[in-house]
Amino acid sequence: MTTPATAPTRDRGVTGPKGFKAAGVAAGIKESGGLDLALVVNEGPGRAAAGVFTTNQVKAAPVLWSQQVLRERRLAAVVLNSGGANACTGPEGFQDTHATAEKVAEVLGVGAIEVAVCSTGLIGERLPMDRLTAGVELAAGRLADGDAAGLAAATAVMTTDTRPKQCWAAHPDGWSVGGFVKGAGMLAPNMATMLSVLTTDAALDGDALDAALRATTARTYDRLDVDGGTSTNDTVLLLASGASGVAPDAGDFARLLTAVAADLVKQLQGDAEGVTKEISVTVNGAASEADALTVARTVAEDNLVKTALFGSDPNWGRVAMAVGRSRATVDQHKLGITINGVTLFADGHKAADRGEADLSGRDIAIVIDLNVGDGAATVLTTDLSHGYVEENSAYSS
Amino acid sequence: MTTPATAPTRDRGVTGPKGFKAAGVAAGIKESGGLDLALVVNEGPGRAAAGVFTTNQVKAAPVLWSQQVLRERRLAAVVLNSGGANACTGPEGFQDTHATAEKVAEVLGVGAIEVAVCSTGLIGERLPMDRLTAGVELAAGRLADGDAAGLAAATAVMTTDTRPKQCWAAHPDGWSVGGFVKGAGMLAPNMATMLSVLTTDAALDGDALDAALRATTARTYDRLDVDGGTSTNDTVLLLASGASGVAPDAGDFARLLTAVAADLVKQLQGDAEGVTKEISVTVNGAASEADALTVARTVAEDNLVKTALFGSDPNWGRVAMAVGRSRATVDQHKLGITINGVTLFADGHKAADRGEADLSGRDIAIVIDLNVGDGAATVLTTDLSHGYVEENSAYSS
Repeated sequence: MTTPATAPTRDRGVTGPKGFKAAGVAAGIKESGGLDLALVVNEGPGRAAAGVFTTNQVKAAPVLWSQQVLRERRLAAVVLNSGGANACTGPEGFQDTHATAEKVAEVLGVGAIEVAVCSTGLIGERLPMDRLTAGVELAAGRLADGDAAGLAAATAVMTTDTRPKQCWAAHPDGWSVGGFVKGAGMLAPNMATMLSVLTTDAALDGDALDAALRATTARTYDRLDVDGGTSTNDTVLLLASGASGVAPDAGDFARLLTAVAADLVKQLQGDAEGVTKEISVTVNGAASEADALTVARTVAEDNLVKTALFGSDPNWGRVAMAVGRSRATVDQHKLGITINGVTLFADGHKAADRGEADLSGRDIAIVIDLNVGDGAATVLTTDLSHGYVEENSAYSS
Repeated sequence: MTTPATAPTRDRGVTGPKGFKAAGVAAGIKESGGLDLALVVNEGPGRAAAGVFTTNQVKAAPVLWSQQVLRERRLAAVVLNSGGANACTGPEGFQDTHATAEKVAEVLGVGAIEVAVCSTGLIGERLPMDRLTAGVELAAGRLADGDAAGLAAATAVMTTDTRPKQCWAAHPDGWSVGGFVKGAGMLAPNMATMLSVLTTDAALDGDALDAALRATTARTYDRLDVDGGTSTNDTVLLLASGASGVAPDAGDFARLLTAVAADLVKQLQGDAEGVTKEISVTVNGAASEADALTVARTVAEDNLVKTALFGSDPNWGRVAMAVGRSRATVDQHKLGITINGVTLFADGHKAADRGEADLSGRDIAIVIDLNVGDGAATVLTTDLSHGYVEENSAYSS
């Protein structure tokens, strides 16, 4: 029988699992002078790792680099910077990423092929490499395994984030999973970039990590959709030290990894740009899970739905419109829409006055019943507010 | 040799071509008491017609009705109402549309099968049929063939539109095309609903009209994309009276029809909800025209691009991000981006400081060179402004 894991906590992160050290320093990449360079080091004994990357065809140099090194499914360290995405910077930008990995390899005494690189910030500008490499030395000197070091790393990757986002959960068998995240979601959202580093002291090989990470991101990071974008830099990495000496059952590992990832994603939703409503869009009765996801994503990305929810308006007609314009199998005569527990539309008819649904609070749950099959999926999103427009119309200028 | 047509003018509309009468009245459907019912009547001698309808799977009752009657490619009249979309209203809503067509048929002495119906407004509410049918009688009594009658009809279909939008253009051979439009685009945009009625006194049969209308909408209405939505009610109708006695060459007709439609679409863009920037996104060098359209549409729908442009920020990195997340063939090392005449990104490198592109004016032209083929397309869009959020968060409540 599986022993239940402890509930995730947010006061620890990447240094929660045994065998990891981290640091976050101010390297001077950000003009603000804030923390902007993070280092996460796996001290082993294992060095298995896996990564999931943006589906965008325009990939930043650090994504191209990290995809390449992850082919070995082995990492000794991850270096991350905010203050610049190093995307659309040509072969020179790739050389900068390579030099960064070489610098980390040099100070840690590992191979550059074992060093992943992540960057976030404005697209199209070269990074200040002198500051960055000096920052790597600074960070290497401050590496520590305590909670403060994990928090410093989680803080150094922030861009428009208003707070660091980390999580940790332990299994009673003596192993745990921790991690941090910045930005917003993975496949669809962007808000600059989503970067996440997950760590575990479970003893697992690269193939097991890869399978678990892909299954987890598909159900967590991939199901947050703030504004339909997909960054050039989105990256989720998972590193295993094996320092617990425990090789968990694949199901147990997947469950704990998913719990941590889901908590991180919930934190992303709550800190999304301009968010005033935290919205879940659940689709039931779809022809397939893929169809359910298509409908949920279309509704989650619809600006007319998102602005109505910003206005606390249970405008289910806009939801019906968005459902219909998706490419999933939809029969308008079987469609039902429930908002915050009140069924407003059922079997193709208005079922209640919209005023009966109370949307004045921060949480909004939309449930769409397609009634054509058994597929189901939930996507998390946020409203489209004045804050979103304000923040994104003044980002780079 | 083809004689050039006169430039389109906006002081005439559906009653510009010979053989048409129109009216716009206040039937009391809108609570504001404004004009809310329009009637356009084709007095012949021909009654050929064609229609293009929303691709949304959730179709309003008037769309279902009008699609059905248009199978005959023959219309005597179109009745249009604002103040209610009659969408998601079940079989009862369809009966309301049918009854509306029957009423028009009765007062005009034609068959209901020759009457198209269009509705726009809030989704999910039944129409006040007593007021609507009384309005039909009122409108029938005011039918006239002058410019004022055409303008009244164009005015009666407005919802969040700030001004009526009409256009007319004459061919030197003695025939002309006119029309009105409300809302925003056809295939992707929505802003409530896009309705358009086009008229001509050219002598053409239904098949010729259908072919010309489909080719025209694909290059005009379908290439305005305000917010990626598609209404339950979007409809474009084309009616031919044949009253000029001239049967134009198919190419001449297509050119004049396209000129009128393009002008109407430009008016839609200029009156879009919250618009402060009129943006064109042109993609050149795509693997195909379909690919070019996919890229242009993805950029036009991207909220991060749209908010940057609202802020007059030539943030080409967001354009590159949107290009890359499209499903078209993209090679980031060949990509080029030019904004308002300044090439900011070329061959995968920054080509100029973004400050060199001046976006302070209302018009913004983005040109994307994919450099992988010969496909090209242009999509018109608008920025994402505080006005858009304001208007759409307060629409139904």
